[in-house]
Amino acid sequence: MDKHIAPVALEKAYRLINHGPTVLVSASHAGVNNVMAAAWCCALDFAPPKLTVVIDKATRTRALVENSGHFVIQVPTVAQLQLTHDVGSKSLLQEPNKLERAGVELFQIDGYETPFVAGCSAWLACRLIPEAHNQNTYDLFIGEVVGAWSDTRVFRDGHWHFEDASPELGSLHYIAGGNFYAIGKALQADTDK
Amino acid sequence: MDKHIAPVALEKAYRLINHGPTVLVSASHAGVNNVMAAAWCCALDFAPPKLTVVIDKATRTRALVENSGHFVIQVPTVAQLQLTHDVGSKSLLQEPNKLERAGVELFQIDGYETPFVAGCSAWLACRLIPEAHNQNTYDLFIGEVVGAWSDTRVFRDGHWHFEDASPELGSLHYIAGGNFYAIGKALQADTDK
Repeated sequence: MDKHIAPVALEKAYRLINHGPTVLVSASHAGVNNVMAAAWCCALDFAPPKLTVVIDKATRTRALVENSGHFVIQVPTVAQLQLTHDVGSKSLLQEPNKLERAGVELFQIDGYETPFVAGCSAWLACRLIPEAHNQNTYDLFIGEVVGAWSDTRVFRDGHWHFEDASPELGSLHYIAGGNFYAIGKALQADTDK
Repeated sequence: MDKHIAPVALEKAYRLINHGPTVLVSASHAGVNNVMAAAWCCALDFAPPKLTVVIDKATRTRALVENSGHFVIQVPTVAQLQLTHDVGSKSLLQEPNKLERAGVELFQIDGYETPFVAGCSAWLACRLIPEAHNQNTYDLFIGEVVGAWSDTRVFRDGHWHFEDASPELGSLHYIAGGNFYAIGKALQADTDK
């Protein structure tokens, strides 16, 4: 594992996605690995941490999640702009070498079967909480976060440090048509008011 | 209605929240108006547009949403940093003059009973799609977007224009402890690749 990667306490895992970044979803089943981008991923609970992610019926990833019961949500960086767009706009169903063409490098973490995407700033390993009605009606999947890690150059001590890190480590926030925004400057509200 | 506010086509309404901003939820029932902040709001579908929002059982807003069947999601701006924090950290249950103290100004749009929060950059009027299991188990509410509007100084022609607008009109992305990030610079992926 990259020397910059360190575990994040589960009670602070929600902070990895609280600012609404576009994420990558990785999943694996029966020897097939896949990664897709998802703009529609959101924290759902603090403890135990849970999250929601919308996974369309047309994706290859969906069956991997349903069949394995696991997936990883990871936060891609500005340096991964094109990779994020590419894994979000191509399907493994039409392009069997999609991951290779997009430049996706996978790595493993001991104790987890799902592969993780290298170069991201944060990773949340999730166990699917099966909810057939949500999955079938809304394409909405709920996961319990069972492990979390960050690149300590940009998230450490339970906080993002985008303002001190390389802009290349910023998070991506997708709109449409290949147009993203990077996360911007830090702002502090008065909490004693 | 403010001269800068214009309707957004429903098929593009998802773009108003696709970049994961922290939002304000307004609701009204039996003469009680309230506004809360929510970091956990996410698009769910394109057409008809739907979204999810997590509304804790401890909030006053929750009963207003459940009893009226309607709510408005709005995207607050950098200029509303303190307002957003204040309506997210105080409850109308403990502080009856919460909205006044936070400086919230409400306005109406013809045909909608729920009040809208002035000064935001986008508004999505929603009809609750009742899902008792999600609401009771996960505090997860699903809304169908039935009307959408934007401040045309920052969202027009179906696109955000944060890069050309005043930084005060940027969206807010909450982490924890009063710490937010503003949305940052625009990035364009190669869509022909």
